Amino acid sequence: MDDGPYYLDDLSVGQRFTTGEYVLDADGAVAFASQWDPQPFHTDKEAAAGTFFGELVASGWYTAAITMRLLVEGLPIAGGVIGAGGEIAWPTPTRPGAVLHVEAEVLEVRPSRSRPDRGMAVVRFETVDRDGAVAQVFTATMVVPRRPAPEDAGT
Amino acid sequence: MDDGPYYLDDLSVGQRFTTGEYVLDADGAVAFASQWDPQPFHTDKEAAAGTFFGELVASGWYTAAITMRLLVEGLPIAGGVIGAGGEIAWPTPTRPGAVLHVEAEVLEVRPSRSRPDRGMAVVRFETVDRDGAVAQVFTATMVVPRRPAPEDAGT
Repeated sequence: MDDGPYYLDDLSVGQRFTTGEYVLDADGAVAFASQWDPQPFHTDKEAAAGTFFGELVASGWYTAAITMRLLVEGLPIAGGVIGAGGEIAWPTPTRPGAVLHVEAEVLEVRPSRSRPDRGMAVVRFETVDRDGAVAQVFTATMVVPRRPAPEDAGT
Repeated sequence: MDDGPYYLDDLSVGQRFTTGEYVLDADGAVAFASQWDPQPFHTDKEAAAGTFFGELVASGWYTAAITMRLLVEGLPIAGGVIGAGGEIAWPTPTRPGAVLHVEAEVLEVRPSRSRPDRGMAVVRFETVDRDGAVAQVFTATMVVPRRPAPEDAGT
């Protein structure tokens, strides 16, 4: 497959994509969590020891943000990476030092009946560490434009 | 109900909580998206005009981050606000200027069979603007500790 941009017409069930990598380090994890998820197990190595996790782990929303950035950089969908929502899970806590990438698999491709210029694609995004540990699974419904008909078609 | 912290034993189906407010402004939305969701409809008012949204809108992940911060500040669950995952949706695009708060409703409370010190609570979190527009719905499975038995019980 070429490098895109991909229209709905270019997607098919079972198709896979892989993004580049992002190093989730402690400084980044603590900075993000201090602003958006300020809980001791995300912001303070010492204090984290006495919590549910027992150690400093990344906020799931930091993993989600990193995942989105990897997708914007690595998944050239025509019109942009636009999700309507989906099912998100963080199967294992993610520790600083994780080197994450996203593995995507197209599960469903559905042209819109009411809007001929677009459709929906259901895509499973697994955010994984180099050792295969799954930091996040996001099965999302994406809004994807149809490929425009050539202006001169049929002439 | 008192101000917490809430253990699983303090939660019941139908219980509701409301958080404080957060003003989602354009500077914050653009700063977040520039780092985590760098697409023109999230980062550039002029360029956004020619996109799917037709105007600058907040990244759904920014709404998610704001939601989490409001919950950490406003939902005093014992041990912290810890989600295993859930279903997330952004029913309407959120424009800068939105003043968001979160309305939570407990849908399910389930003590763990294997771990007597904890359980799961399913909670629906609606992130809403002052005019009632729903920016995000997150129906999450939370990990919540049981209330510890008093040391001197039965003496």
